[in-house]
Amino acid sequence: MRKIMLALGGNALGKNPSEQIELVKETAKAIVDLVEEGHEIVVAHGNGPQVGMINLAFEAASSIDSKIPEMPFPECGAMSQGYIGYHLQNAISYELRERNIKKSVVSLVSQVIVDENDPAFQNPTKPVGGFYTEEEAKKLESEKGYIMTEDSARGYRRLVPSPRPIDIVEKDIIADLAEKGHIVIAVGGGGIPTVRRGSRLIGVAAVIDKDFASEKLAELLDCDTLFILTAVKKVSINFARPEQVDLDKMRVSEAKKYIKEGHFASGSMLPKVEAAVKFVESKEGRRAIITSLENAKQAIEKGEGTTIVK
Amino acid sequence: MRKIMLALGGNALGKNPSEQIELVKETAKAIVDLVEEGHEIVVAHGNGPQVGMINLAFEAASSIDSKIPEMPFPECGAMSQGYIGYHLQNAISYELRERNIKKSVVSLVSQVIVDENDPAFQNPTKPVGGFYTEEEAKKLESEKGYIMTEDSARGYRRLVPSPRPIDIVEKDIIADLAEKGHIVIAVGGGGIPTVRRGSRLIGVAAVIDKDFASEKLAELLDCDTLFILTAVKKVSINFARPEQVDLDKMRVSEAKKYIKEGHFASGSMLPKVEAAVKFVESKEGRRAIITSLENAKQAIEKGEGTTIVK
Repeated sequence: MRKIMLALGGNALGKNPSEQIELVKETAKAIVDLVEEGHEIVVAHGNGPQVGMINLAFEAASSIDSKIPEMPFPECGAMSQGYIGYHLQNAISYELRERNIKKSVVSLVSQVIVDENDPAFQNPTKPVGGFYTEEEAKKLESEKGYIMTEDSARGYRRLVPSPRPIDIVEKDIIADLAEKGHIVIAVGGGGIPTVRRGSRLIGVAAVIDKDFASEKLAELLDCDTLFILTAVKKVSINFARPEQVDLDKMRVSEAKKYIKEGHFASGSMLPKVEAAVKFVESKEGRRAIITSLENAKQAIEKGEGTTIVK
Repeated sequence: MRKIMLALGGNALGKNPSEQIELVKETAKAIVDLVEEGHEIVVAHGNGPQVGMINLAFEAASSIDSKIPEMPFPECGAMSQGYIGYHLQNAISYELRERNIKKSVVSLVSQVIVDENDPAFQNPTKPVGGFYTEEEAKKLESEKGYIMTEDSARGYRRLVPSPRPIDIVEKDIIADLAEKGHIVIAVGGGGIPTVRRGSRLIGVAAVIDKDFASEKLAELLDCDTLFILTAVKKVSINFARPEQVDLDKMRVSEAKKYIKEGHFASGSMLPKVEAAVKFVESKEGRRAIITSLENAKQAIEKGEGTTIVK
C-alpha cells in the first residue's frame, strides 16, 4: 500500500461542463484503478481553463448588467474548486460504486499560503481573464492596478504572479480524511493563493502551480509517492527532436542537469520535474512518477512512465 | 456539550463578494461563540442570491461571448458552495485564531439526494435566473424544456422544483470530520440536488430548502440541536399584527396547530418551523431553536429565542 498524492493535468478535465463531465469519467477510472490496488489517494487538479472561464463570465456579465458584481480572482478560484470538485467527486463515486468499493470521496475548498515577499509578486507571469484593447488595458492599469501585457496580437491581458506554496491551510483536515480511508480532492487549481497577516488570511490574485501545491501537500501528508499525470507517458530529453530519448528513470542529479540544459518547457514539463525533484529530495524513500492518465496503473504496477528517485 | 447543526439564513451572507466578506465576519463571531462554549458545530447556509448571481452571470456572458458556455444549474450550485464556503471558512478561521482556539474549518462540495418521483418535480415553485420577455420565455420552454412563469410584471423567469432531501451523499465524511473536532460547512444552499440511478448520481435543476437539508443532516449526524438562524429573535404568531405574540417555547403540537392556522409565511418562517418539527419528532431528546444570528449565544446559554420541543 502506497500513500499517493495524485496531481491531475489539464487534459483530465474539460473546457466546458458537458466536455468535463465526460472527461472526468476516464479520469475517475484511472484514479479508482489505484484505489482498487489498495493505495491511499489524495487528488489535486489544475484549473487554468476553468477559472479563466469563470473569471471571463463575470467580467463579461458585470460589464453589461449592473446587478452582476465583478468577481475577484481568489473567489473565482473558489468557484472553480466547487465546480471541478463536483464533477470529479461524482465521477469517482460512480466508479467506486460500480466496483463495489466502500469509500467516500469529497472535494474541499483549499487555501494555500504564499509569502507576500515572494519575488513572483514583482514579476507577474500568468495571463488570466479576457483580452482588452490597449486603451482598455491602460484604464485597468490605472484604475485597478492590474498589470497588463500584450498577448500575441490578440490584445492585452492581465498578468498575475505565480508564487510558491509554503503551507496548506486545510492540511489537518485533509490528513484526517485520508487517514479515515476517504478519497480527498484538495488544492484544486493549486489552491486559492492566500497570504497570512496575523490571524487573517487574505486571498490574493495569483496562480499557484498545481504541481508545486501538490508537492507541498504530499510532503505535509507524508506521502511516499508524488504522482504527476500529464499528456505524455514519459518525460523526454531532446523532446520533439530526432534525438529524443524517453526516460524510464531519472535520478535527481540527472534531472537537475537536464533542467539546466533546458530540456523541459516552462509552464509545462519544467514545473513537473522541479516538483518531482523537490519531493524526492524532501525525505529519504520518497519517489515521484510522471506519466499519462492512461498509463497510471501500469506506472504504479510495472514501473512504466518516468520514475524520479534520489 | 451539545452537538449542533446550525443553519444560517440569507442575512448571514451577502449579495456580492465585498458585502459578503464583511457580513460573514459577524456570522463567524456568532458561530465561534458557540464553539467557544464547547459545542460541536456543523454549519449549513443558504445560497439563493449567490447561486442566482452565478447563474445570471453565465446566462448573460454566454449570450454575448460564444467562448463562455452555458452553465447548468447544479454546477452553479457547486460554484456557490465554493464561493460562500471560502468566505465563511476564512472568517471562522480568523475568529478561531483570534480567540486562540485550535480548530480547523472547511467547506465541502455537498450533494443531497432527492426522489425523482417527488411531487415537487410536477410543480416547480422556485424562480431562478434572469428575466425574459414572453417571446424569449416561449423559446426557452420549447428549446430547453424550461418551465417559465410571469414574475410580477418584471418579465418571465424560470421555475425549478423544490424537492425534499432524502439523503446526504457526503454524510460519512461530515460525520468523521465533526467527530475529529473540525468545524464543517456542508449542504450549502441545501446541497446540490441529486437523483440516484443505479451507481450514478445525476445533478438536477432544483433547489432544496436549506432548512430541510439541515434537518436531514442533523438527523444523520445524530445532533441534539437543530439551530436555525434567521432575521428575527423569536418565532411569532399573528406576525406584524397588533395581536402579535413572540414565542419562547413551542411544543410540536402547538407548532402544527399554528402551521394549519397559517401563521407562518411559506418560503420564510414556514419551512423553518416545519424543519424544526420534523427534527424534534425524529428522536427523543432532540430540540430545535429558531432565533437571530445576534441572539445565537443567548439562545443556547439562556434559552432566549424560540425553542421547539416535543
